[in-house]
Amino acid sequence: MRDDAFIPGPRLTLPGAADGPLAGLRFAAKDLFDIAGQPTGAGNPDWAASHPLPQRHAWAVQTLLDAGAALAGKTVTCEVSLGILGFNQFHGTPRNPAAPGCLPGGSSSGSASAVAAGECDTALGTDTGGSVRVPASLCGLYGLRPTHGRIPVTGMVTQAPSFDTTGWFARDAATFARVAAVMLGEPIPETVPPAPLLLATDAFALADEAVQQALAPAVERVAALLGQGVERITLGEPGELAVWGAQRNIVQRAEGWQTFRPWIDAANPRFAFNVARNLAFAASLTEAQVALAQSVRERVRARARLLLEGGAMLAIPTTPFTAPPLGLPLAEIDRLADRIGLLCSFAGLSGVPQISLPLAMAEGKPVGLSLIAAPGQDARLVAIARAL
Amino acid sequence: MRDDAFIPGPRLTLPGAADGPLAGLRFAAKDLFDIAGQPTGAGNPDWAASHPLPQRHAWAVQTLLDAGAALAGKTVTCEVSLGILGFNQFHGTPRNPAAPGCLPGGSSSGSASAVAAGECDTALGTDTGGSVRVPASLCGLYGLRPTHGRIPVTGMVTQAPSFDTTGWFARDAATFARVAAVMLGEPIPETVPPAPLLLATDAFALADEAVQQALAPAVERVAALLGQGVERITLGEPGELAVWGAQRNIVQRAEGWQTFRPWIDAANPRFAFNVARNLAFAASLTEAQVALAQSVRERVRARARLLLEGGAMLAIPTTPFTAPPLGLPLAEIDRLADRIGLLCSFAGLSGVPQISLPLAMAEGKPVGLSLIAAPGQDARLVAIARAL
Repeated sequence: MRDDAFIPGPRLTLPGAADGPLAGLRFAAKDLFDIAGQPTGAGNPDWAASHPLPQRHAWAVQTLLDAGAALAGKTVTCEVSLGILGFNQFHGTPRNPAAPGCLPGGSSSGSASAVAAGECDTALGTDTGGSVRVPASLCGLYGLRPTHGRIPVTGMVTQAPSFDTTGWFARDAATFARVAAVMLGEPIPETVPPAPLLLATDAFALADEAVQQALAPAVERVAALLGQGVERITLGEPGELAVWGAQRNIVQRAEGWQTFRPWIDAANPRFAFNVARNLAFAASLTEAQVALAQSVRERVRARARLLLEGGAMLAIPTTPFTAPPLGLPLAEIDRLADRIGLLCSFAGLSGVPQISLPLAMAEGKPVGLSLIAAPGQDARLVAIARAL
Repeated sequence: MRDDAFIPGPRLTLPGAADGPLAGLRFAAKDLFDIAGQPTGAGNPDWAASHPLPQRHAWAVQTLLDAGAALAGKTVTCEVSLGILGFNQFHGTPRNPAAPGCLPGGSSSGSASAVAAGECDTALGTDTGGSVRVPASLCGLYGLRPTHGRIPVTGMVTQAPSFDTTGWFARDAATFARVAAVMLGEPIPETVPPAPLLLATDAFALADEAVQQALAPAVERVAALLGQGVERITLGEPGELAVWGAQRNIVQRAEGWQTFRPWIDAANPRFAFNVARNLAFAASLTEAQVALAQSVRERVRARARLLLEGGAMLAIPTTPFTAPPLGLPLAEIDRLADRIGLLCSFAGLSGVPQISLPLAMAEGKPVGLSLIAAPGQDARLVAIARAL
């Protein structure tokens, strides 16, 4: 099975504009982003034939090209963005250069793999349920899930519109910030004003002991930069993160089923078992179940406002563990995906921005510390990354 | 997409024994039957790599070879025998030579297609939920689901052991009977003793009006041969066939999940959406649901004994319609499959033998009349087919 970061077939490249803030950079695009005149594969063998050939570049691709970056290729994604560990049973699992023999995380697995391997400087991903944050953590990269709705998703294969975001990766904070200024359309502040750092103890408690220990010095570094110490808080009531994870699953999957149902009914496409099974689960959800889950979402949004509106930064582990080994049985994959979901659901449900910082190693493999801020404070998160 | 009856790759052929009762015949084998030293594909791209290379031929293959028939190739099957309409999203849908542009029926779709096209004289299929009977009906062939347990399934990819059977197809009754004598290990009687013919009105009522009309003369032909007239009966109480169909689904799928679960958990294989979805449904069944369905099965067995033990023959339509067109949306496919299941469940649940006879045409396409007999009376069913 192939382990390439790029999709099968000839490498698709495009020059960037002659000059611009990203001149000299090479970027890759997850195969969910349209390139004019080229089929978008979406990580599934039956997607392209069922969808029209793109007439124009996706907004994110056009924006990077206009800023002077050159397209270095399109990257492997989990099937129609459904997957958090990064494997693809049709196109292979992109290798994790930071943790050989381990999963890269997904669904933006190829983009993270290509950046981590130095095959490009930055790469576009999408983050609906963690698909930028998780591979950033497992591959040792900077990765941002922007404020929901902040960056256009035009020309991107969407999954669950109330969750979908466009993000990107870089190996170093300076490059990450250069790209961020273009993608956000806003300069990245040179200074980091003082702010309280909230350490979410219920989120840290969900991580492996080794991850908790590895992240502790990183939390101290961030706190030192922010200059107002660390306040230990909880995101929710005891056990509530598990509820949020389960309810986020319901809302996101129900939206995904609405998105993909017409295609599935018309084409009966091929999927890996776990992807189809999760879609079938989504198809079985009742309106009442989804309505209940939506009410939980309101509770999470209220918690996010309360915690973040005063300008505080929130720290959580991006993932509860480092990159898991390849070749796990499906039951174990499912357990790991559920554990990841517990940590990714807070920003996913509330729409707040979350950046994963490659500040720690555990068991010889990277793991990310995440900082979360109030909606719209994306540039501030990037500024902190660069100042560390 | 390919529409070949045979699996992709070089045609796998083997000579038969120098002489024997089937000398001169060419047979094909559904790709669920082992050929020594060759991978069995089972209609799924991830099956062969997860299973050991067969060391010997399947019982049915060896039996036909020993009887002098030559292997003409291995045929396309619905994925791991899960499918009743005959398409395969990986290997294509074998064409239906008797109804161009239409589905061949499945899961033994390639075997039926190859025989109907004259590419071989007979072909092995498997029938768990109708996979010989249905393609026989839709492709205009003779096809038998033997008494459950009558013919060894050794070396055949099984699905639901309490339903699995090995069957075969032929274009003409004489060839069918030659093969039957070998497969059953029993001579086919030259004479057909008188017997009552029971016409199951509740089964006929489930068929399209055109199918009911087309089968009426065929029923008369059989009744004339049996010489004791037609008695109109019902298989069950009003509405009961729908219950049987639903409960058969539950028992069969629960068994199928037990069969395939270890492979699926280890390999997370690729499937068409509908196949994976049905497996996921099976995974969600509770022991209580399966126990209830098993109790319904006892009721069907009791009805079969009551109706058939005195030597009566039972007539039902094999399928409620002729071959449906290619390209239907999945929701329509599901409705058609459910309707087929209503007619196939009686023999499936009770284990009695059922032969489909190509005695009628409706809308320019074939449709089979099925005769059902008491357990062990397989040869008698074949004798009737030959005597008609």
